[in-house]
Amino acid sequence: MQITLKTPLDMHLHLRDHEMLQTVAPLSAETFSAAIIMPNLVPPVTTIEEVIAYKERISKATGNLNFDPLMTLFFKNDYSYDFLKQAKAHITAIKLYPAGITTNSESGVSSIDSENLRHTLEAMSELEIPLCIHGETDGFVMDREKEFVPIYEDLAKNYPNLKIIMEHITTKDSVEALDRHPNLYATITLHHLLITLDDVAGGMLKPHLFCKPIAKRYEDREALLKVALEAHPKVMFGSDSAPHPQHAKEACGCAAGVFTAPIALQVLAELFETHNKLDNLQSFISDNAQKIYHYTPSPKAVVLEKKPFTVPETYDNVVPMYAGEEIAWSITSLS
Amino acid sequence: MQITLKTPLDMHLHLRDHEMLQTVAPLSAETFSAAIIMPNLVPPVTTIEEVIAYKERISKATGNLNFDPLMTLFFKNDYSYDFLKQAKAHITAIKLYPAGITTNSESGVSSIDSENLRHTLEAMSELEIPLCIHGETDGFVMDREKEFVPIYEDLAKNYPNLKIIMEHITTKDSVEALDRHPNLYATITLHHLLITLDDVAGGMLKPHLFCKPIAKRYEDREALLKVALEAHPKVMFGSDSAPHPQHAKEACGCAAGVFTAPIALQVLAELFETHNKLDNLQSFISDNAQKIYHYTPSPKAVVLEKKPFTVPETYDNVVPMYAGEEIAWSITSLS
Repeated sequence: MQITLKTPLDMHLHLRDHEMLQTVAPLSAETFSAAIIMPNLVPPVTTIEEVIAYKERISKATGNLNFDPLMTLFFKNDYSYDFLKQAKAHITAIKLYPAGITTNSESGVSSIDSENLRHTLEAMSELEIPLCIHGETDGFVMDREKEFVPIYEDLAKNYPNLKIIMEHITTKDSVEALDRHPNLYATITLHHLLITLDDVAGGMLKPHLFCKPIAKRYEDREALLKVALEAHPKVMFGSDSAPHPQHAKEACGCAAGVFTAPIALQVLAELFETHNKLDNLQSFISDNAQKIYHYTPSPKAVVLEKKPFTVPETYDNVVPMYAGEEIAWSITSLS
Repeated sequence: MQITLKTPLDMHLHLRDHEMLQTVAPLSAETFSAAIIMPNLVPPVTTIEEVIAYKERISKATGNLNFDPLMTLFFKNDYSYDFLKQAKAHITAIKLYPAGITTNSESGVSSIDSENLRHTLEAMSELEIPLCIHGETDGFVMDREKEFVPIYEDLAKNYPNLKIIMEHITTKDSVEALDRHPNLYATITLHHLLITLDDVAGGMLKPHLFCKPIAKRYEDREALLKVALEAHPKVMFGSDSAPHPQHAKEACGCAAGVFTAPIALQVLAELFETHNKLDNLQSFISDNAQKIYHYTPSPKAVVLEKKPFTVPETYDNVVPMYAGEEIAWSITSLS
């Protein structure tokens, strides 16, 4: 059995910087046409110069792999209309982090409400710059995303011309909010389609499956699977592939993030095939995102075949999901 | 500020075997008069000979520290009345594990209901051998204990003369069940009085706080704190101190268990003092258990003082709770 995926897009990707960038950027660039690049470096990407410089470092790391890094700014509430107008030529979206909610988000926004952010959000609406949000409160870990849904809805209602992307959604509540507001969209990761908290902490504790937002309940995973498999038009694939060195994962305090970039397409093929929905994978992996972001990628085709592939134990010092395990699908050619 | 605790008892303790036993047994024996010793060795302790031999190994490891290991058998549904009658001279209780629910519990009971276990439970009732239970189903990790409460209640109703100890309870539901049945009792650990899932997985992932049952929600911790601080007469301290070598905790798959034995009394003193309940600590740490188990320990007195103590980073290769941190109370003398 074979499938050809045209111009796969990863609408939520962490490439980091320095050595890690050299390790992981080529792995995404090989199989994806483009990706939304998250700006939570240390320090975060907040100026046009930083965007341009980071994009250059990514392009250098990915060489001639025909990969388009879609850049983002780290949301700051003091971005002016004029600044954003200039920035628009260099970025695809702006990413908003609640302060301290995940890796390198300390300088995020501490009070998110529609009034507080009016100046910047009105400018973004007018300039048609999409707003990507990591939607979690600082509440109890299993409730953080659920508690954020009213904040998404407040923003969606107050800025009807702003495209808001609920990033890496993990709960039934978020899925349900999608259809209540025309300007709410969502990315879904690979791992949240596959695991629940039981996989992270139900048997042995699995640091390599620990991520933010944390994997939730079975009913949440079901709700995510449903909209992904049907390729709901407001839903896009965003891996949130988030590499950390092995020593930072298998440690006294383990960093959040699952590294899925090099196995995402293969495992998605397996998942969609298992549910008899292979026909919908093209929309989930690229077409929906193209429409939502008004983006046309340059041509790329990935041929996948149902043929076992043993996932490497590590890519340099990064442990991928399914490390050392056999998965059912392989990539057989790229063009 | 000082407090003297008489004959502290740890009503739920893992001492393991071999080298680990040599490391951890003296640490408990130094400050506790006695402890209920869990039987989940590999293979589990299921014969009188094994009980006697394990007790001898413990006594050898604790030397002249004036410590009474209260032995348990690993529950098997084929224990006969005659066997149990013989065993009674050597054990204090029998510990029931649902199959596969925690460390070394693979040979536990796969179907727990009052009819299925009638033969053994009637014998235990008649012989007045308490039944200690690890009460978790194989459901979703956050629901396992809640789902087990009806099983506790079924057993309590059907065996009114059987003393049932709900071990290491972690939820509001379990606390509430305590008062509905005269023959239900509970142990509570130190760590479940202190942490919630937020401490394990809300920031960085903390393998040294990963245990079974997993720490729950704030309202659960509040319910546990309430009955511990008031020294509810059906509640006893049981540390569930469960050592694993550091490499088994900071690993790709981390074993369940928090190692608290050497700091339990100091941190309990701090906790009870903070809540202005120091007067109740003696009941929680010893008197309640003496009444519930009809057990009189040989004299021991531990003097604690409000004076900072820096917890060692490790005890041999075992990382304790609060490793390297300063806690507010110290043990100043033992007699």
